[in-house]
Amino acid sequence: MTTAEQGVILLLSCPDRSGLVSRIAHFIFERGGNILDLDEHVDPVDRTFFIRVAWSTDSFSIPVSELEAAFTPLAREFAASWSLRFSGRRTRLAIFVSRYDHCLQELLWRNSIGEFPVDISLIVSNHPDLAPLAERYDIPFHVVAVSGENRAEAERQQIELLEQHSIDTVVLARYMQVLSGQFVERYPGRIINIHHSFLPAFVGGSPYRQAYERGVKIIGATSHFVTEELDQGPIIEQDIVRVSHKDTLDDLVRKGRDLERLVLAKAVRLHSQHRILVNGKKTVVFE
Amino acid sequence: MTTAEQGVILLLSCPDRSGLVSRIAHFIFERGGNILDLDEHVDPVDRTFFIRVAWSTDSFSIPVSELEAAFTPLAREFAASWSLRFSGRRTRLAIFVSRYDHCLQELLWRNSIGEFPVDISLIVSNHPDLAPLAERYDIPFHVVAVSGENRAEAERQQIELLEQHSIDTVVLARYMQVLSGQFVERYPGRIINIHHSFLPAFVGGSPYRQAYERGVKIIGATSHFVTEELDQGPIIEQDIVRVSHKDTLDDLVRKGRDLERLVLAKAVRLHSQHRILVNGKKTVVFE
Amino acid sequence: MTTAEQGVILLLSCPDRSGLVSRIAHFIFERGGNILDLDEHVDPVDRTFFIRVAWSTDSFSIPVSELEAAFTPLAREFAASWSLRFSGRRTRLAIFVSRYDHCLQELLWRNSIGEFPVDISLIVSNHPDLAPLAERYDIPFHVVAVSGENRAEAERQQIELLEQHSIDTVVLARYMQVLSGQFVERYPGRIINIHHSFLPAFVGGSPYRQAYERGVKIIGATSHFVTEELDQGPIIEQDIVRVSHKDTLDDLVRKGRDLERLVLAKAVRLHSQHRILVNGKKTVVFE
Amino acid sequence: MTTAEQGVILLLSCPDRSGLVSRIAHFIFERGGNILDLDEHVDPVDRTFFIRVAWSTDSFSIPVSELEAAFTPLAREFAASWSLRFSGRRTRLAIFVSRYDHCLQELLWRNSIGEFPVDISLIVSNHPDLAPLAERYDIPFHVVAVSGENRAEAERQQIELLEQHSIDTVVLARYMQVLSGQFVERYPGRIINIHHSFLPAFVGGSPYRQAYERGVKIIGATSHFVTEELDQGPIIEQDIVRVSHKDTLDDLVRKGRDLERLVLAKAVRLHSQHRILVNGKKTVVFE
Repeated sequence: MTTAEQGVILLLSCPDRSGLVSRIAHFIFERGGNILDLDEHVDPVDRTFFIRVAWSTDSFSIPVSELEAAFTPLAREFAASWSLRFSGRRTRLAIFVSRYDHCLQELLWRNSIGEFPVDISLIVSNHPDLAPLAERYDIPFHVVAVSGENRAEAERQQIELLEQHSIDTVVLARYMQVLSGQFVERYPGRIINIHHSFLPAFVGGSPYRQAYERGVKIIGATSHFVTEELDQGPIIEQDIVRVSHKDTLDDLVRKGRDLERLVLAKAVRLHSQHRILVNGKKTVVFE
Repeated sequence: MTTAEQGVILLLSCPDRSGLVSRIAHFIFERGGNILDLDEHVDPVDRTFFIRVAWSTDSFSIPVSELEAAFTPLAREFAASWSLRFSGRRTRLAIFVSRYDHCLQELLWRNSIGEFPVDISLIVSNHPDLAPLAERYDIPFHVVAVSGENRAEAERQQIELLEQHSIDTVVLARYMQVLSGQFVERYPGRIINIHHSFLPAFVGGSPYRQAYERGVKIIGATSHFVTEELDQGPIIEQDIVRVSHKDTLDDLVRKGRDLERLVLAKAVRLHSQHRILVNGKKTVVFE
Repeated sequence: MTTAEQGVILLLSCPDRSGLVSRIAHFIFERGGNILDLDEHVDPVDRTFFIRVAWSTDSFSIPVSELEAAFTPLAREFAASWSLRFSGRRTRLAIFVSRYDHCLQELLWRNSIGEFPVDISLIVSNHPDLAPLAERYDIPFHVVAVSGENRAEAERQQIELLEQHSIDTVVLARYMQVLSGQFVERYPGRIINIHHSFLPAFVGGSPYRQAYERGVKIIGATSHFVTEELDQGPIIEQDIVRVSHKDTLDDLVRKGRDLERLVLAKAVRLHSQHRILVNGKKTVVFE
Repeated sequence: MTTAEQGVILLLSCPDRSGLVSRIAHFIFERGGNILDLDEHVDPVDRTFFIRVAWSTDSFSIPVSELEAAFTPLAREFAASWSLRFSGRRTRLAIFVSRYDHCLQELLWRNSIGEFPVDISLIVSNHPDLAPLAERYDIPFHVVAVSGENRAEAERQQIELLEQHSIDTVVLARYMQVLSGQFVERYPGRIINIHHSFLPAFVGGSPYRQAYERGVKIIGATSHFVTEELDQGPIIEQDIVRVSHKDTLDDLVRKGRDLERLVLAKAVRLHSQHRILVNGKKTVVFE
């Protein structure tokens, strides 16, 4: 969907049955909507249906404010999980960082040239180091120190900040702290992490060191939704780069940095364009 | 679509307008068809609409033999180009080769393990060299010698063979002769070639030599539909491999051989699954 | 090194010290050898030196039969592990297979067009299925049935076959049995396996199923030397391919098949050209 | 070579002959140098020899200031083109830009975290737009307006700036002006450009538009040395990304931007580490 047109995106999943596409398309058509993009998928194992439809509301016969109510009966009949995203409403992002600047810088720069339809509303860090970078792009930057003892209190402060800024999605841009289950539960499918390995290889800390010691010929990076189990959330995007015996551990870190930036940026773009649906432990990504 | 179910695939393109998806989906739904896969695209420049819909006909209310007649009024209203492919009907392929065996062998082997839903009905060559390979897979092999003088006569013989075997699609698997405009016209969008370069770089003969002399760091292969203009047809698929100063011309040929095999095989698979629509000088490939 | 010239390849590793390249190069130079290719590496962690030197012996002042004796004093001084490979002497390969034909076919075909400087002397299988493929390429094919109880006896027969055919290297081309520690010990750095995942992800059986269930966006294949620990040997080569939510488990198997073929073939080519040195749990690969 | 050690890098090319490696290695060894890295290549067509040797001078028996004189007799005997780079001496870079910030930002950021052993001494632009970016990294920024009429005068000013700042290498980071033959001649093998296509496909202006209209399935970027012929200089590095019918021209520009950044950064890194030798219309890149 071009940004110029007013539009809506429907993301929906439900048990598969006959006529889903027809009835959803008809719902749009009979209200004067023009479908701009439609992608669907049926999981062949558990027969779940997934759809993303974007349509123009320029000639829509009902106000978009009434759309949710109008669609509810159909969604109920389908026993669907669903959401509507309006083109005028930009996703509000908070970025959590520690000391590495590469992922943060990438996201800020891409956003500044208009690559993402998001508002980066808030940066939270457990270190003050990246405050100047935040300032350069004029984004509020808050330091919330985290230590073993004060994690609960730190998370309370973080959540307060997220609520004050009406944050939709949290992006962990090489944030080096583990979030508690309670935190994660508040933002289901709305916390995106970048892990610096080709998951499920090298979970946990020091993946580059693990990769170096194992002597792999390819390293990777993985962006995934955060769930309670560390590094086990649904994978959104992965990419890789070749390495050889000539590459030192520092070279792996350097090469991996480029992967991390690009993979996280792609995941954020896909999410901000409402192209991702969670399917159990996996994702459906309508590119 | 899994091969177990009976089904139909519709490929259609027409000028874009409101309601196309809805009306096509409704056409299927009201006749008891269950959509298994739907992909659509609108060319943003000339506003042409493209769709591929696969549906199960297990509970279809009309015989598939009447489907074409039933859909014709809708197609006419849309001013559409369209075709229907029935799961019981396998595409009939002829493969044209010269002396290189790698592409032919790849296609025959993949077909033998069921990767393509096609019948390879005929192999035509201007050299007898690959007859034993054809024999191993039990495919009729015909030598039609081609020289400067007899090209017209040779093509007459080739077309006769294609007609005798009711061939739908011709695959040029490193066939080293250029086909005439008259030949090409008979099979619009139904002759698939593999060119051993990353088109449009290195058109014409000796692309590996050209690539070697230019000192490129990446070589490629391109599968495309054949049109009257040499190497200018709509591109179906491309892939690449890295090369370095260490690679000799022979190394480029060796590395390129792997690309040619894989790229051509992928193009044939996409075509046999009715996933390709021609859009002027380009293709729409619904993967 | 072009195959036309007579030549020798030295593979050597030893503790790093000053003057190694100079003294090895000088050893060759003063005997009239012309270095065709030289590659070296120093492991920065444990300071081990690795070198591969290929030189032409066309004007060599001593017979190649005396080369080993002539080089021994230098090697001893360096406390080196080393070996010499003469261009006239082709590596003798045994291929172990079960029922899948794709890797075997790939190796046989590539060898038939001269891609590897090896003799494929023997094919051993625990099933008779691939006998016709072996026959087509005129390679001795032996069935050695393996079951839980008779593994020791089966391995005795296999080793007898390997010795009868003076086998240098064993290639496991999707051979579905685990070799015993005793077997593996007899062929250190000389058993090459293809594992159908991106190791260390998805060790053990059913890696494609594991990958499918985890929802990865990229799958891989890994060729490695076999050691006593399953799937833990030094990695020679890896490659990957993208997958998406649209890919079924069968699609993963199909896409993976292409990876397996190409990755194993590359590992065999590198090994046959004496480009691989083992460095503890890793490899040094001089491409 | 780790940056901690003092060292020298020799880049040399000459007609191939017996004993080159031995005599160069011996030259280093007999003066107490310890070879840290050695890579060589012989062009099989015109038999030119290329070598890169890095050695530690920690225990060198002669001062590095006398090294050039000491090596000259050998180089003369070999009829070699050669140069020595000392680890204490960083390459001085000037970056030329127009209005696009992505390549400049990438180079400045990478340099700021120590990825390149260079000094970025000067930024020259024909537009004032990127002055704030230069200022942020504290690099002198000069606007030299260029128009059809004043190109000669503009180049005179540019050369004056390059000389004032003792610039070794000029990097064109999406600089949208063509340099004259006279300018290019002053910096042979020392002007690096990024072209936003997979050369030799789509030379000249608007390569993304050309790629979009041709319907390619892969786009690329190419970094090359600038020569008098536009887009014909020796290629240093290339990379590609997949595109599909879904990608608009804007998507190609966006995807290509990432390629341009990474490919140019890699070329600058290779050049700054003295890993590139020009071989006629090609390069030898010792990675």
